[in-house]
Amino acid sequence: MTLSWSSSGWDVHLDWRPDTGARGLAEAIRAAIRDRRLTPGTAMPSTRELAKDLGIARGTVTRVYADLSAEGYLHTSQGAATKVRDLHPAAPVSAPRLRAAEPAVHRGFAPGSPDVSLFPRDRWLSATRRVLQRAPTALFGYPDERGSVTLREALAGYLARTRGVLADPERIVVCAGFSHAMALLARVLRDRGAEEIAFECPSLPQFRAVAKAAAEVRIAGVPVDEHGLRVSELDSPAVVLTPAHQYPTGVPLAPDRRTELTRWATRTGAMVIEDDYDGEFRFDRQQVGALQALAPERVAYVGTASKTLAPGLRIGWLVLPRTLVEPVRAAINATGWRPPALEQAVLAELISSGGYDQHIRRCRGIYRARREKLLDAIPDWLVPHGIAAGLQVLLRLPESGPGEAAVAAAARRRGLGVEMLGRHWIGEGPHPQGIVVGYATPAEHAFGPTLQTFLDVLAEVSR
Amino acid sequence: MTLSWSSSGWDVHLDWRPDTGARGLAEAIRAAIRDRRLTPGTAMPSTRELAKDLGIARGTVTRVYADLSAEGYLHTSQGAATKVRDLHPAAPVSAPRLRAAEPAVHRGFAPGSPDVSLFPRDRWLSATRRVLQRAPTALFGYPDERGSVTLREALAGYLARTRGVLADPERIVVCAGFSHAMALLARVLRDRGAEEIAFECPSLPQFRAVAKAAAEVRIAGVPVDEHGLRVSELDSPAVVLTPAHQYPTGVPLAPDRRTELTRWATRTGAMVIEDDYDGEFRFDRQQVGALQALAPERVAYVGTASKTLAPGLRIGWLVLPRTLVEPVRAAINATGWRPPALEQAVLAELISSGGYDQHIRRCRGIYRARREKLLDAIPDWLVPHGIAAGLQVLLRLPESGPGEAAVAAAARRRGLGVEMLGRHWIGEGPHPQGIVVGYATPAEHAFGPTLQTFLDVLAEVSR
Repeated sequence: MTLSWSSSGWDVHLDWRPDTGARGLAEAIRAAIRDRRLTPGTAMPSTRELAKDLGIARGTVTRVYADLSAEGYLHTSQGAATKVRDLHPAAPVSAPRLRAAEPAVHRGFAPGSPDVSLFPRDRWLSATRRVLQRAPTALFGYPDERGSVTLREALAGYLARTRGVLADPERIVVCAGFSHAMALLARVLRDRGAEEIAFECPSLPQFRAVAKAAAEVRIAGVPVDEHGLRVSELDSPAVVLTPAHQYPTGVPLAPDRRTELTRWATRTGAMVIEDDYDGEFRFDRQQVGALQALAPERVAYVGTASKTLAPGLRIGWLVLPRTLVEPVRAAINATGWRPPALEQAVLAELISSGGYDQHIRRCRGIYRARREKLLDAIPDWLVPHGIAAGLQVLLRLPESGPGEAAVAAAARRRGLGVEMLGRHWIGEGPHPQGIVVGYATPAEHAFGPTLQTFLDVLAEVSR
Repeated sequence: MTLSWSSSGWDVHLDWRPDTGARGLAEAIRAAIRDRRLTPGTAMPSTRELAKDLGIARGTVTRVYADLSAEGYLHTSQGAATKVRDLHPAAPVSAPRLRAAEPAVHRGFAPGSPDVSLFPRDRWLSATRRVLQRAPTALFGYPDERGSVTLREALAGYLARTRGVLADPERIVVCAGFSHAMALLARVLRDRGAEEIAFECPSLPQFRAVAKAAAEVRIAGVPVDEHGLRVSELDSPAVVLTPAHQYPTGVPLAPDRRTELTRWATRTGAMVIEDDYDGEFRFDRQQVGALQALAPERVAYVGTASKTLAPGLRIGWLVLPRTLVEPVRAAINATGWRPPALEQAVLAELISSGGYDQHIRRCRGIYRARREKLLDAIPDWLVPHGIAAGLQVLLRLPESGPGEAAVAAAARRRGLGVEMLGRHWIGEGPHPQGIVVGYATPAEHAFGPTLQTFLDVLAEVSR
């Protein structure tokens, strides 16, 4: 397990594997102190906090801290946090491997990732066991290029139930995440004559890059306002948008805009690509259903396990207009790729057994609490934008105060990753200033210290 | 588990899952008899044979056979094989679901697959458990597009040790099998100006189709003789070949041809794509090392777990000339795909723990025995071609006898899949006649009956 916490303006990563026990934990902390990833004076997490995050007994952590104090690595004092000692000049290190370290910028609050330390390792292992015990031999043969029937059926039920998607298994195609879906769709749309794809402005630049690289299409930016995408400004044969929770502004697509969009698509024959990247995470009330249900023959819905489970799995799914199923299948074939059979079977088992829903519910509670803590703690001059949902929040900066570049630079100096709103803009020109905070990114024990570092950054820039 | 055996000229598939026990096995056999997948008079496998293949106690199978005999589904008689009874007219079936079935063509001896019933389920599960217990949290984040360092390091060691590949992890890229590698390389070569790729004639048509679909390159066919590819006839900027065990003729690339090929590539700047699809399986002596070692800057080596473990995993690897690493990485990026992190970690664990080698050794013994049985059993007028290696053998047909189409048609009538040599030819024109027999394809218990069906087919066509 890579642990990270930030303290005194530093993010610190600690490599520790559960099977190495207390001994391994002690050595990992020693190494971090020797390498100055943990610098003198740094406050260690409390024994209770660290034990909880690691899933080990508090007594183990207490013993490790005591040992390290005896060895001169840590300093404990009644009623205060355990801190890192200065090893110089009299530290009892037999082979000191000291080097002056640049503060490494860790992910911190960089948006785009769930807390991967929440990955349900036990559930995944159990589901793998059940699949390997029960699966027919045919599972191990060449997989269907559209994805396994078992997973497509499980997804159809799940998406209908949780997102209101009109999803019969025949129009589902399994892919390797949204980027992969974007590349496939861009190629299919290009083959059907589309030379331009519209994206929301602002939106994630990576997906625009994938569309360009995959199919050499032009990118058109269409502005987003308080009601989501300005549908009236659309003039492209295809558009990619995030209707449940616009990335990065956090607004949902308003009901009349939804109607307007599907009417526009039906009238012009345009294709709508619905990026439902975090539709599972709405905190204030039941999430509005997917846009796809309004016009299943004009909307290509894309979902992913990257935010609900882990980006490392590389599993996503398309629910396609019937006319696109065969072209997407052919596009997949042309890449020589097919979805891996075993991971598909395990995900299907996880969904069918209810474990997927339970995991999402657990994460939803954690992310909701983090969002509330963050919004309670930030100073008044930062204005949170959008609905209570998802894994990140846009904090708007006042026109008269420090700009986003100043905030990001100060954060970087403290080793804290955050994202600037400006990076999401399409084209040049002025844009509002803001910071996109990925509160889901840190491990649970690191959230508090990461938040504190962020608050320190804000205090610094507003001085 | 899908079971298949063939008997009396029929291939029969039986769906049974280990967790359903004796009861499920009985019901699976009942269903097969009711649906006439098992027809009256069909000899069932012996209890010993079936028990061994299923990995259950022989007593369980004996009990199931006894129950089904009592129910009127099977007929047992002292000293003879247990056979399927005719359910008409007096069979005690409460709800008969009878339908006259067309003989379904099952994979039988169709080449291109290992015996997927040998997939090491227990080893894979144990490796998954170890990975999930020990892996750092970072495993679940966005994976490196070139593949995980852990897997690339494990592969570098494995490929150097077993195939003599000059494989430092920095030139390894993980992909989703040979088709995926072919599509990526075709696109990279096309971007570098190659408008044509040469393939061996004969060779597998699927890969030529992938190259065409992925990059719109022309395909040139270059003949194969007793010494492998006729290097002197090469006149393309790139060539794809199978030097360890030419597919489908089974000859290895002769030593002087290897030298000639790498000299040609160095002189002309052409790129050689080495498809090492079954280099792990040589039966007579130590396999000759990979071509790549002779010219690592001119040979892109491609290996895969499709034959050693299972095609369903969709994991392969490229060992690239240094100049191609960055272009291939960029080509992967343009497809929005990245290799799934968990399967990579499990494969790396399997390799590092020695389980991968052990599994390959086991399979090698099984396939060697099958090849010997096949070659001992076939009539003299069929001439086996190539070296003692791999998962399939080409059987040449005499010019005066029945042609490959006649053999394939007779096989199809008995529900047996085999492959014609002609399908591998590039372009029109006459070609030698032959049958490609994938002896690795059936499950172990089905091999004997499948072989018998094949012999019946040969007897029929030679009458």
